[in-house]
Amino acid sequence: MSIQEEILKLAREVKEASRYLSKCSSKLKDEVLLAMSKKIKEKKDLLLEANQKDIASAEEENLPPALIDRLLLNDKRIDSMADGLKDVAQLKDPVGEVVGMWRRPNGLQIGQIRVPLGVVGIIYESRPNVTADATGLCLKSGNAIILRGGREAINSNKAIASLLQEALKRHDLPEPLITLIESTDRAWVQELVKLNGYIDVVILRGGKALLNVIGQESKVPIIAHGEGNCHTYIDKGADIDMAVKIAFNAKVQRPGVCNAMETLLVHKERAEEFLPIIAKKLKEAQVEIRGCPRTREIITDIDEAIEEDWYKEYLDLILAVKVVGSLDEAIDHINRYGSSHSEAIVTSSYQNSRRFLEEVDAAAIYVNASTRFTDGGEFGLGAEIGISTQKLHARGPMGLRELTTTKFIILGDGQIRE
Amino acid sequence: MSIQEEILKLAREVKEASRYLSKCSSKLKDEVLLAMSKKIKEKKDLLLEANQKDIASAEEENLPPALIDRLLLNDKRIDSMADGLKDVAQLKDPVGEVVGMWRRPNGLQIGQIRVPLGVVGIIYESRPNVTADATGLCLKSGNAIILRGGREAINSNKAIASLLQEALKRHDLPEPLITLIESTDRAWVQELVKLNGYIDVVILRGGKALLNVIGQESKVPIIAHGEGNCHTYIDKGADIDMAVKIAFNAKVQRPGVCNAMETLLVHKERAEEFLPIIAKKLKEAQVEIRGCPRTREIITDIDEAIEEDWYKEYLDLILAVKVVGSLDEAIDHINRYGSSHSEAIVTSSYQNSRRFLEEVDAAAIYVNASTRFTDGGEFGLGAEIGISTQKLHARGPMGLRELTTTKFIILGDGQIRE
Repeated sequence: MSIQEEILKLAREVKEASRYLSKCSSKLKDEVLLAMSKKIKEKKDLLLEANQKDIASAEEENLPPALIDRLLLNDKRIDSMADGLKDVAQLKDPVGEVVGMWRRPNGLQIGQIRVPLGVVGIIYESRPNVTADATGLCLKSGNAIILRGGREAINSNKAIASLLQEALKRHDLPEPLITLIESTDRAWVQELVKLNGYIDVVILRGGKALLNVIGQESKVPIIAHGEGNCHTYIDKGADIDMAVKIAFNAKVQRPGVCNAMETLLVHKERAEEFLPIIAKKLKEAQVEIRGCPRTREIITDIDEAIEEDWYKEYLDLILAVKVVGSLDEAIDHINRYGSSHSEAIVTSSYQNSRRFLEEVDAAAIYVNASTRFTDGGEFGLGAEIGISTQKLHARGPMGLRELTTTKFIILGDGQIRE
Repeated sequence: MSIQEEILKLAREVKEASRYLSKCSSKLKDEVLLAMSKKIKEKKDLLLEANQKDIASAEEENLPPALIDRLLLNDKRIDSMADGLKDVAQLKDPVGEVVGMWRRPNGLQIGQIRVPLGVVGIIYESRPNVTADATGLCLKSGNAIILRGGREAINSNKAIASLLQEALKRHDLPEPLITLIESTDRAWVQELVKLNGYIDVVILRGGKALLNVIGQESKVPIIAHGEGNCHTYIDKGADIDMAVKIAFNAKVQRPGVCNAMETLLVHKERAEEFLPIIAKKLKEAQVEIRGCPRTREIITDIDEAIEEDWYKEYLDLILAVKVVGSLDEAIDHINRYGSSHSEAIVTSSYQNSRRFLEEVDAAAIYVNASTRFTDGGEFGLGAEIGISTQKLHARGPMGLRELTTTKFIILGDGQIRE
């Protein structure tokens, strides 16, 4: 069989399985989730062993330490993966929720009801816990899942997926509901995204390069977990202590993630007071600062930020800093260079907070808080399968609800259209 | 300037204008809609004159009478176009609606608020009233619109768009908010759908051929107003009078539209009773029936339905008929051959109605009513910009709400992530 034939066969089986799952009760789905959680805790040794193989290959290949760290499973991480599945079992089942129901003058009763999407594909990178997290969310929302993880995590992913499948089998659910693509050949991904009609959506977690390649080829709708070029703007009326605390947190608490700050904007009337304080703290935390000309008059020992810096998602201990003349200039800068992910203002002005919330075009807009909160768990959605930076279907952290669609149901007594 | 440069320039202006509109009040938007409605009624002669040119060319080119009818504007149709704009002004503005708001344990207040998409492109066919309808819905929901109508309606569309723009200008709104592509060169469409970042969604109303071509090339997200291969299933326990009334209405009341019935399914135990009655009525209405072998035993003077008929959207006075052995067989047939648009069951069985609603995978599912009701107006959504047969973002008739996205707003008092 060619890859094309093989993946089509596989996708048909997954689609078939998804039809079966869509009829299952919440109770059954939750039992399976709890069984999965238990299974992972019981078979910890097996997972650690498989993970060891991935770590060994990664070290042999001299992969960067940050990547090896993301790859690593340990006792604590496995426990948290298992707990995650338990948490998802506690969440409210989105399937069957009646979004609205009303009666028309002709007596027709019309309702809109939440149903699973069907088959969800997910393409992700090195962290093996995504295998369990994404599967849990898809199962709970009634969707079958096709998983394509990173090449470097293949042994860990296979071990996790086979444990999850064991729990499925115990509850007489069809195995293809969780389908891990074991081949690391890129051709599989290319064929996968052509299966419109079998796969209802592909969630892409994996940087711009992957998005550019797959986004071009895909015939299946894609939701991209896009990049985050996030800003914090220190307004004229900001409380300086709060501004320092928020800006520092947004840059330093975890610089490698999409909701970390990449550019700091400061109102010109506060620059001389604020910049020396934050610069000192940032330098102590090993942050490299790149500044606009005005910033470099105040903080003299830093490099210049060039045009390209304003577009950059560093994902690192690097920060671009710009002094702006007004709230308007700050908003214009954000709407021009930002990636519409998470944007914050620190201000004491009611009017300016309203304008910032209204005029900035992004998935998440903050007043007086760190952008680091953009996350399904932190927002109270329970869990997330990704963060969408697009506008259609889902925007911002995506939870269970975003893994569903709706259908209209129309209840009549013989009505016809005149 | 090349087409590519020209359309990029144009798209930039539209994007800019959309930013301005997103800040306008509902009051202003409604005033403009009412002014547009008035303008169209006042300048009826101008529209009739422009339309005459299109009709004359269409006749010269020997276009089919059904198409010429769709193209035609008359007093009544112009009035109803004007009234449509007035109706949209009466609808509730979706922008600014708070979808939800909650407080987190750390004191952060998180809300999800409805905002315009930005720039909506629409590619449509011959009916010129779509120019006004779509513009009204986009304006009300705070979106700029780029219109690309059918070649054969170009004079009518230009006349309508220029009247709508006059109303914009009177209210000091930027003209590019309503941008009609005047060139009928197909290259414009091909460039249009590459403008990811400038156009937020393209709504495609125009059949499978257009979808196949554009769907392949588009880098902008597309919502397709897809085809409707709709079924009516007459269940074992159906009331025969009601079944006849509903099936006849679904096929005959307006056969050329997407929510008309294309295949009739009949339970084997009611076939002998039901088929002769409906066949007589259908034949009187000039409907050609194509039947499965069992159907042809009962109605002997009809052609055979071949495999391909089950997939067909006839959009004409033709109907495929199949006798099925059970509800299961009916549901399987629909899920296999249907286009997930509108599906109906006629039944007296509570259990079967529940199973049909649950197990059929479609945008609109009916019990004891004609599929012809699938329409934004009939559903009570006020108006529609199209009917989506896809699952992401919108499914079924799309109204104002589907022309919006959301953003998260997060109100803090200095919260940082630990």
